[in-house]
Amino acid sequence: MPYVRIALAAGKPPSWLSSISTSLQQALEESFEVPAGDCFQVFQQCQAGELVFDRDYLSAGRSDDFILFHITAGRARSTACKQAFFARLAERLAASPGLRQQDIMVVITTTGLEDWSFGNGQSALPDHQQQRC
Amino acid sequence: MPYVRIALAAGKPPSWLSSISTSLQQALEESFEVPAGDCFQVFQQCQAGELVFDRDYLSAGRSDDFILFHITAGRARSTACKQAFFARLAERLAASPGLRQQDIMVVITTTGLEDWSFGNGQSALPDHQQQRC
Amino acid sequence: MPYVRIALAAGKPPSWLSSISTSLQQALEESFEVPAGDCFQVFQQCQAGELVFDRDYLSAGRSDDFILFHITAGRARSTACKQAFFARLAERLAASPGLRQQDIMVVITTTGLEDWSFGNGQSALPDHQQQRC
Repeated sequence: MPYVRIALAAGKPPSWLSSISTSLQQALEESFEVPAGDCFQVFQQCQAGELVFDRDYLSAGRSDDFILFHITAGRARSTACKQAFFARLAERLAASPGLRQQDIMVVITTTGLEDWSFGNGQSALPDHQQQRC
Repeated sequence: MPYVRIALAAGKPPSWLSSISTSLQQALEESFEVPAGDCFQVFQQCQAGELVFDRDYLSAGRSDDFILFHITAGRARSTACKQAFFARLAERLAASPGLRQQDIMVVITTTGLEDWSFGNGQSALPDHQQQRC
Repeated sequence: MPYVRIALAAGKPPSWLSSISTSLQQALEESFEVPAGDCFQVFQQCQAGELVFDRDYLSAGRSDDFILFHITAGRARSTACKQAFFARLAERLAASPGLRQQDIMVVITTTGLEDWSFGNGQSALPDHQQQRC
Protein backbone atom coordinates (compact mmCIF):
# COMPACT_ATOMS: atom_id res chain seq x y z
CA MET A 1 0.00 0.00 0.00
CA PRO A 2 -0.59 2.53 -1.28
CA TYR A 3 -1.68 1.87 -4.81
CA VAL A 4 -2.21 4.72 -7.24
CA ARG A 5 -4.49 5.21 -10.21
CA ILE A 6 -3.25 7.74 -12.72
CA ALA A 7 -5.39 9.31 -15.45
CA LEU A 8 -3.93 11.37 -18.29
CA ALA A 9 -4.63 12.07 -21.94
CA ALA A 10 -3.39 9.45 -24.39
CA GLY A 11 -0.72 10.39 -26.90
CA LYS A 12 2.43 10.51 -24.82
CA PRO A 13 5.42 8.24 -25.54
CA PRO A 14 6.14 5.29 -23.22
CA SER A 15 9.04 7.22 -21.69
CA TRP A 16 6.57 9.85 -20.42
CA LEU A 17 4.64 7.24 -18.46
CA SER A 18 7.75 5.54 -17.12
CA SER A 19 9.15 8.88 -15.95
CA ILE A 20 5.90 9.63 -14.16
CA SER A 21 5.95 6.18 -12.59
CA THR A 22 9.48 6.65 -11.29
CA SER A 23 8.95 10.18 -9.99
CA LEU A 24 5.72 9.20 -8.26
CA GLN A 25 7.36 6.29 -6.50
CA GLN A 26 10.31 8.44 -5.45
CA ALA A 27 7.99 11.05 -3.96
CA LEU A 28 5.99 8.40 -2.12
CA GLU A 29 9.11 6.88 -0.60
CA GLU A 30 10.68 10.24 0.25
CA SER A 31 7.63 12.03 1.66
CA PHE A 32 4.68 9.69 2.17
CA GLU A 33 6.28 7.11 4.48
CA VAL A 34 6.18 4.38 1.85
CA PRO A 35 8.82 1.62 2.03
CA ALA A 36 11.06 0.86 -0.93
CA GLY A 37 9.50 -1.57 -3.35
CA ASP A 38 5.92 -0.83 -2.29
CA CYS A 39 4.98 0.14 -5.84
CA PHE A 40 1.58 -0.50 -7.42
CA GLN A 41 0.29 1.79 -10.16
CA VAL A 42 -2.49 1.64 -12.74
CA PHE A 43 -2.41 4.17 -15.58
CA GLN A 44 -5.40 5.07 -17.74
CA GLN A 45 -4.53 6.80 -21.02
CA CYS A 46 -7.73 8.66 -21.87
CA GLN A 47 -9.05 9.11 -25.39
CA ALA A 48 -10.75 12.31 -26.57
CA GLY A 49 -13.74 13.09 -24.38
CA GLU A 50 -12.77 10.68 -21.61
CA LEU A 51 -10.82 13.10 -19.41
CA VAL A 52 -12.86 16.18 -18.52
CA PHE A 53 -11.41 18.91 -16.31
CA ASP A 54 -11.75 22.59 -15.61
CA ARG A 55 -8.73 24.59 -16.74
CA ASP A 56 -8.75 27.04 -13.83
CA TYR A 57 -10.68 25.76 -10.78
CA LEU A 58 -8.59 26.46 -7.62
CA SER A 59 -5.41 26.44 -9.73
CA ALA A 60 -5.21 28.49 -12.90
CA GLY A 61 -3.71 27.34 -16.14
CA ARG A 62 -4.18 23.60 -16.55
CA SER A 63 -3.00 22.37 -19.94
CA ASP A 64 -3.54 19.22 -22.02
CA ASP A 65 -0.82 17.63 -19.87
CA PHE A 66 -3.20 17.57 -16.90
CA ILE A 67 -2.76 14.45 -14.79
CA LEU A 68 -4.84 13.11 -11.92
CA PHE A 69 -3.35 10.86 -9.24
CA HIS A 70 -5.76 8.93 -7.02
CA ILE A 71 -3.89 7.37 -4.13
CA THR A 72 -5.50 4.65 -2.03
CA ALA A 73 -3.48 4.56 1.17
CA GLY A 74 -3.32 1.73 3.70
CA ARG A 75 -3.26 3.99 6.76
CA ALA A 76 -3.74 7.63 7.67
CA ARG A 77 -0.98 10.21 7.28
CA SER A 78 -0.71 13.56 9.08
CA THR A 79 -1.73 16.74 7.34
CA ALA A 80 1.90 17.82 7.35
CA CYS A 81 2.91 14.58 5.68
CA LYS A 82 0.33 15.00 2.95
CA GLN A 83 1.40 18.57 2.33
CA ALA A 84 5.04 17.56 2.11
CA PHE A 85 4.10 14.81 -0.32
CA PHE A 86 2.12 17.14 -2.58
CA ALA A 87 5.11 19.47 -2.77
CA ARG A 88 7.63 16.70 -3.32
CA LEU A 89 5.53 15.04 -6.02
CA ALA A 90 5.30 18.33 -7.91
CA GLU A 91 9.07 18.80 -7.62
CA ARG A 92 9.82 15.30 -8.84
CA LEU A 93 7.44 15.56 -11.79
CA ALA A 94 8.77 18.97 -12.74
CA ALA A 95 12.24 17.42 -12.93
CA SER A 96 11.03 14.34 -14.83
CA PRO A 97 9.20 14.13 -17.19
CA GLY A 98 8.89 17.92 -16.98
CA LEU A 99 5.31 18.45 -15.86
CA ARG A 100 4.08 21.92 -15.04
CA GLN A 101 2.99 22.14 -11.42
CA GLN A 102 -0.40 23.52 -12.45
CA ASP A 103 -1.17 20.24 -14.21
CA ILE A 104 -0.82 17.94 -11.21
CA MET A 105 -3.92 16.99 -9.23
CA VAL A 106 -3.88 14.52 -6.34
CA VAL A 107 -6.62 12.85 -4.31
CA ILE A 108 -6.00 10.53 -1.34
CA THR A 109 -8.41 7.90 -0.02
CA THR A 110 -7.55 6.18 3.24
CA THR A 111 -8.27 2.57 4.21
CA GLY A 112 -6.95 0.28 6.96
CA LEU A 113 -4.18 -2.29 6.99
CA GLU A 114 -6.70 -5.09 7.28
CA ASP A 115 -8.22 -3.98 3.96
CA TRP A 116 -5.23 -5.22 2.00
CA SER A 117 -4.06 -8.54 0.71
CA PHE A 118 -0.77 -8.61 -1.20
CA GLY A 119 -1.07 -12.22 -2.19
CA ASN A 120 -1.44 -15.82 -1.09
CA GLY A 121 -4.95 -15.24 0.17
CA GLN A 122 -3.66 -13.51 3.30
CA SER A 123 -4.27 -10.09 4.79
CA ALA A 124 -1.48 -7.58 5.26
CA LEU A 125 -1.98 -7.54 9.04
CA PRO A 126 1.02 -8.56 11.11
CA ASP A 127 0.76 -12.09 12.51
CA HIS A 128 -0.13 -11.06 16.04
CA GLN A 129 -3.12 -9.11 14.72
CA GLN A 130 -4.44 -11.92 12.56
CA GLN A 131 -7.84 -13.23 13.57
CA ARG A 132 -9.00 -16.77 13.22
CA CYS A 133 -12.48 -17.54 11.93
CA MET B 1 -13.56 18.10 -5.43
CA PRO B 2 -15.39 15.93 -6.14
CA TYR B 3 -14.00 13.99 -9.01
CA VAL B 4 -16.05 11.32 -10.73
CA ARG B 5 -15.17 8.11 -12.52
CA ILE B 6 -17.76 6.97 -15.03
CA ALA B 7 -17.92 3.47 -16.53
CA LEU B 8 -20.15 2.60 -19.47
CA ALA B 9 -20.11 0.31 -22.46
CA ALA B 10 -18.16 1.54 -25.48
CA GLY B 11 -19.99 2.27 -28.70
CA LYS B 12 -21.73 5.55 -27.99
CA PRO B 13 -21.03 8.68 -30.06
CA PRO B 14 -18.97 11.51 -28.52
CA SER B 15 -22.15 13.55 -28.03
CA TRP B 16 -23.44 10.87 -25.63
CA LEU B 17 -20.41 11.29 -23.38
CA SER B 18 -20.47 15.06 -23.54
CA SER B 19 -24.17 15.11 -22.62
CA ILE B 20 -23.50 12.88 -19.65
CA SER B 21 -20.61 15.10 -18.62
CA THR B 22 -22.77 18.21 -18.73
CA SER B 23 -25.77 16.69 -16.96
CA LEU B 24 -23.56 15.23 -14.25
CA GLN B 25 -21.89 18.54 -13.56
CA GLN B 26 -25.25 20.35 -13.51
CA ALA B 27 -26.62 17.88 -10.97
CA LEU B 28 -23.53 18.21 -8.79
CA GLU B 29 -23.76 21.99 -8.76
CA GLU B 30 -27.52 22.03 -8.22
CA SER B 31 -27.82 19.33 -5.57
CA PHE B 32 -24.44 18.24 -4.21
CA GLU B 33 -23.12 21.59 -2.99
CA VAL B 34 -20.42 21.74 -5.65
CA PRO B 35 -19.21 25.17 -6.82
CA ALA B 36 -19.31 26.17 -10.47
CA GLY B 37 -16.22 25.07 -12.34
CA ASP B 38 -15.33 22.29 -9.92
CA CYS B 39 -15.45 19.72 -12.71
CA PHE B 40 -13.18 16.67 -12.90
CA GLN B 41 -14.35 13.51 -14.67
CA VAL B 42 -12.71 10.36 -15.98
CA PHE B 43 -14.73 8.15 -18.35
CA GLN B 44 -13.96 4.52 -19.08
CA GLN B 45 -15.60 3.14 -22.22
CA CYS B 46 -15.69 -0.59 -21.57
CA GLN B 47 -15.18 -3.23 -24.24
CA ALA B 48 -17.10 -6.52 -24.33
CA GLY B 49 -16.62 -8.42 -21.08
CA GLU B 50 -15.18 -5.46 -19.18
CA LEU B 51 -18.41 -4.15 -17.64
CA VAL B 52 -20.28 -6.83 -15.72
CA PHE B 53 -23.55 -6.05 -13.95
CA ASP B 54 -26.70 -7.73 -12.79
CA ARG B 55 -29.76 -6.66 -14.77
CA ASP B 56 -32.18 -6.65 -11.83
CA TYR B 57 -30.44 -6.42 -8.44
CA LEU B 58 -32.29 -3.84 -6.26
CA SER B 59 -33.54 -2.11 -9.43
CA ALA B 60 -35.16 -4.12 -12.18
CA GLY B 61 -34.56 -3.67 -15.87
CA ARG B 62 -30.99 -2.48 -16.45
CA SER B 63 -30.14 -2.31 -20.15
CA ASP B 64 -26.94 -2.11 -22.19
CA ASP B 65 -26.98 1.63 -21.44
CA PHE B 66 -26.08 0.91 -17.80
CA ILE B 67 -23.71 3.50 -16.39
CA LEU B 68 -21.83 3.57 -13.09
CA PHE B 69 -20.76 6.83 -11.45
CA HIS B 70 -18.15 6.64 -8.70
CA ILE B 71 -17.89 9.98 -6.95
CA THR B 72 -14.95 10.75 -4.69
CA ALA B 73 -16.07 13.67 -2.54
CA GLY B 74 -13.88 16.08 -0.60
CA ARG B 75 -16.16 16.28 2.44
CA ALA B 76 -19.24 14.59 3.86
CA ARG B 77 -22.76 15.46 2.71
CA SER B 78 -25.99 14.87 4.61
CA THR B 79 -28.19 11.91 3.75
CA ALA B 80 -30.82 14.33 2.47
CA CYS B 81 -28.26 15.98 0.20
CA LYS B 82 -27.21 12.64 -1.25
CA GLN B 83 -30.81 11.63 -1.84
CA ALA B 84 -31.57 14.91 -3.56
CA PHE B 85 -28.49 14.46 -5.73
CA PHE B 86 -29.43 10.93 -6.78
CA ALA B 87 -32.85 12.20 -7.85
CA ARG B 88 -31.51 15.26 -9.64
CA LEU B 89 -28.85 13.29 -11.48
CA ALA B 90 -31.47 10.87 -12.77
CA GLU B 91 -33.66 13.79 -13.90
CA ARG B 92 -30.80 15.50 -15.70
CA LEU B 93 -29.65 12.33 -17.43
CA ALA B 94 -33.21 11.48 -18.46
CA ALA B 95 -33.41 14.88 -20.13
CA SER B 96 -29.97 14.58 -21.73
CA PRO B 97 -28.73 12.28 -23.23
CA GLY B 98 -31.95 10.39 -22.51
CA LEU B 99 -30.86 7.73 -20.04
CA ARG B 100 -33.45 5.47 -18.44
CA GLN B 101 -33.46 5.92 -14.67
CA GLN B 102 -33.03 2.17 -14.16
CA ASP B 103 -29.63 2.37 -15.83
CA ILE B 104 -28.02 4.87 -13.47
CA MET B 105 -25.93 3.60 -10.56
CA VAL B 106 -24.02 5.88 -8.19
CA VAL B 107 -21.46 5.24 -5.45
CA ILE B 108 -19.96 7.94 -3.24
CA THR B 109 -16.65 7.73 -1.38
CA THR B 110 -15.82 10.48 1.10
CA THR B 111 -12.39 11.93 1.87
CA GLY B 112 -11.21 15.09 3.65
CA LEU B 113 -10.22 18.50 2.33
CA GLU B 114 -6.61 17.87 3.27
CA ASP B 115 -6.59 14.85 0.93
CA TRP B 116 -6.71 17.05 -2.16
CA SER B 117 -4.19 19.00 -4.15
CA PHE B 118 -5.47 20.92 -7.17
CA GLY B 119 -2.06 21.95 -8.36
CA ASN B 120 1.20 23.70 -7.61
CA GLY B 121 2.18 21.14 -5.04
CA GLN B 122 -0.21 22.58 -2.48
CA SER B 123 -3.08 21.12 -0.51
CA ALA B 124 -6.63 22.38 -0.87
CA LEU B 125 -6.78 23.42 2.80
CA PRO B 126 -7.47 27.11 3.42
CA ASP B 127 -4.38 29.05 4.44
CA HIS B 128 -5.20 29.24 8.13
CA GLN B 129 -5.41 25.45 8.29
CA GLN B 130 -2.12 24.83 6.51
CA GLN B 131 0.52 23.12 8.58
CA ARG B 132 4.22 23.67 8.29
CA CYS B 133 6.61 20.75 8.35
CA MET C 1 -22.80 -3.16 -3.27
CA PRO C 2 -19.98 -3.88 -3.41
CA TYR C 3 -18.65 -3.02 -6.79
CA VAL C 4 -15.20 -4.11 -7.88
CA ARG C 5 -12.63 -2.64 -10.21
CA ILE C 6 -10.19 -5.18 -11.63
CA ALA C 7 -6.90 -4.29 -13.31
CA LEU C 8 -4.85 -6.83 -15.23
CA ALA C 9 -2.55 -6.92 -18.26
CA ALA C 10 -4.28 -7.09 -21.63
CA GLY C 11 -3.79 -10.15 -23.81
CA LYS C 12 -5.95 -12.76 -22.13
CA PRO C 13 -8.86 -14.44 -23.96
CA PRO C 14 -12.43 -13.49 -23.03
CA SER C 15 -12.81 -16.74 -21.12
CA TRP C 16 -10.07 -15.63 -18.72
CA LEU C 17 -12.03 -12.53 -17.78
CA SER C 18 -15.32 -14.35 -17.49
CA SER C 19 -13.75 -16.98 -15.23
CA ILE C 20 -12.35 -14.27 -13.00
CA SER C 21 -15.73 -12.57 -12.94
CA THR C 22 -17.48 -15.76 -11.86
CA SER C 23 -14.91 -16.76 -9.25
CA LEU C 24 -14.88 -13.27 -7.76
CA GLN C 25 -18.64 -13.21 -7.43
CA GLN C 26 -18.69 -16.68 -5.89
CA ALA C 27 -16.09 -15.65 -3.30
CA LEU C 28 -18.02 -12.48 -2.47
CA GLU C 29 -21.25 -14.38 -1.94
CA GLU C 30 -19.59 -17.19 0.01
CA SER C 31 -17.31 -15.16 2.27
CA PHE C 32 -18.03 -11.43 2.09
CA GLU C 33 -21.72 -11.43 3.06
CA VAL C 34 -22.83 -10.39 -0.42
CA PRO C 35 -26.32 -11.45 -1.57
CA ALA C 36 -26.84 -13.41 -4.78
CA GLY C 37 -27.13 -11.16 -7.81
CA ASP C 38 -25.30 -8.24 -6.21
CA CYS C 39 -22.72 -8.23 -9.01
CA PHE C 40 -21.06 -5.11 -10.40
CA GLN C 41 -17.58 -5.29 -11.91
CA VAL C 42 -15.43 -3.04 -14.08
CA PHE C 43 -12.34 -4.58 -15.70
CA GLN C 44 -9.42 -2.59 -17.06
CA GLN C 45 -7.16 -4.51 -19.47
CA CYS C 46 -3.88 -2.63 -19.24
CA GLN C 47 -1.55 -2.04 -22.17
CA ALA C 48 2.25 -2.12 -21.86
CA GLY C 49 3.41 0.39 -19.27
CA GLU C 50 -0.03 0.94 -17.76
CA LEU C 51 0.16 -1.64 -14.96
CA VAL C 52 3.22 -1.16 -12.77
CA PHE C 53 3.87 -3.45 -9.81
CA ASP C 54 6.70 -4.74 -7.71
CA ARG C 55 7.35 -8.45 -8.23
CA ASP C 56 8.20 -9.24 -4.62
CA TYR C 57 6.89 -6.62 -2.16
CA LEU C 58 5.28 -8.44 0.83
CA SER C 59 4.61 -11.46 -1.40
CA ALA C 60 7.38 -12.92 -3.52
CA GLY C 61 7.02 -14.08 -7.07
CA ARG C 62 4.38 -12.00 -8.84
CA SER C 63 4.17 -12.84 -12.54
CA ASP C 64 2.70 -11.17 -15.62
CA ASP C 65 -0.66 -12.61 -14.52
CA PHE C 66 -0.75 -10.15 -11.61
CA ILE C 67 -4.26 -8.89 -10.95
CA LEU C 68 -5.48 -6.12 -8.64
CA PHE C 69 -9.01 -6.12 -7.20
CA HIS C 70 -10.27 -2.88 -5.71
CA ILE C 71 -13.51 -3.50 -3.84
CA THR C 72 -15.75 -0.61 -2.83
CA ALA C 73 -17.99 -2.01 -0.10
CA GLY C 74 -21.29 -0.59 1.09
CA ARG C 75 -20.70 -1.34 4.78
CA ALA C 76 -17.91 -2.46 7.07
CA ARG C 77 -16.98 -6.12 7.48
CA SER C 78 -15.11 -7.69 10.40
CA THR C 79 -11.41 -8.44 10.14
CA ALA C 80 -12.23 -12.12 10.24
CA CYS C 81 -14.66 -11.73 7.36
CA LYS C 82 -12.07 -9.94 5.26
CA GLN C 83 -9.47 -12.58 5.99
CA ALA C 84 -11.86 -15.36 5.07
CA PHE C 85 -12.70 -13.53 1.85
CA PHE C 86 -9.05 -13.08 0.86
CA ALA C 87 -8.50 -16.81 1.33
CA ARG C 88 -11.67 -17.84 -0.48
CA LEU C 89 -10.98 -15.53 -3.41
CA ALA C 90 -7.53 -17.03 -3.84
CA GLU C 91 -8.99 -20.54 -3.72
CA ARG C 92 -11.66 -19.75 -6.28
CA LEU C 93 -9.22 -18.07 -8.65
CA ALA C 94 -6.75 -20.92 -8.31
CA ALA C 95 -9.51 -23.28 -9.40
CA SER C 96 -10.68 -21.02 -12.23
CA PRO C 97 -9.09 -19.56 -14.32
CA GLY C 98 -6.00 -20.99 -12.63
CA LEU C 99 -4.37 -17.94 -11.07
CA ARG C 100 -1.33 -18.36 -8.85
CA GLN C 101 -2.06 -17.09 -5.35
CA GLN C 102 1.01 -14.86 -5.46
CA ASP C 103 -0.58 -12.87 -8.28
CA ILE C 104 -3.74 -11.79 -6.46
CA MET C 105 -3.84 -8.43 -4.74
CA VAL C 106 -6.94 -7.01 -3.06
CA VAL C 107 -7.80 -3.60 -1.61
CA ILE C 108 -11.09 -2.78 0.13
CA THR C 109 -12.58 0.70 0.53
CA THR C 110 -15.63 1.07 2.78
CA THR C 111 -18.56 3.45 2.32
CA GLY C 112 -22.05 3.64 3.84
CA LEU C 113 -25.39 2.37 2.61
CA GLU C 114 -26.58 5.91 2.02
CA ASP C 115 -23.72 6.38 -0.45
CA TRP C 116 -25.32 4.07 -3.01
CA SER C 117 -28.03 4.43 -5.59
CA PHE C 118 -28.87 1.34 -7.65
CA GLY C 119 -31.23 3.17 -9.96
CA ASN C 120 -34.36 5.23 -10.32
CA GLY C 121 -32.77 8.21 -8.62
CA GLN C 122 -33.17 6.63 -5.20
CA SER C 123 -30.75 5.77 -2.44
CA ALA C 124 -30.20 2.22 -1.28
CA LEU C 125 -31.37 3.05 2.25
CA PRO C 126 -34.36 1.09 3.49
CA ASP C 127 -37.60 3.08 3.43
CA HIS C 128 -37.71 3.79 7.15
CA GLN C 129 -34.27 5.40 6.97
CA GLN C 130 -35.06 7.63 4.01
CA GLN C 131 -34.96 11.32 4.71
CA ARG C 132 -37.10 13.93 3.08
CA CYS C 133 -35.61 17.19 1.89
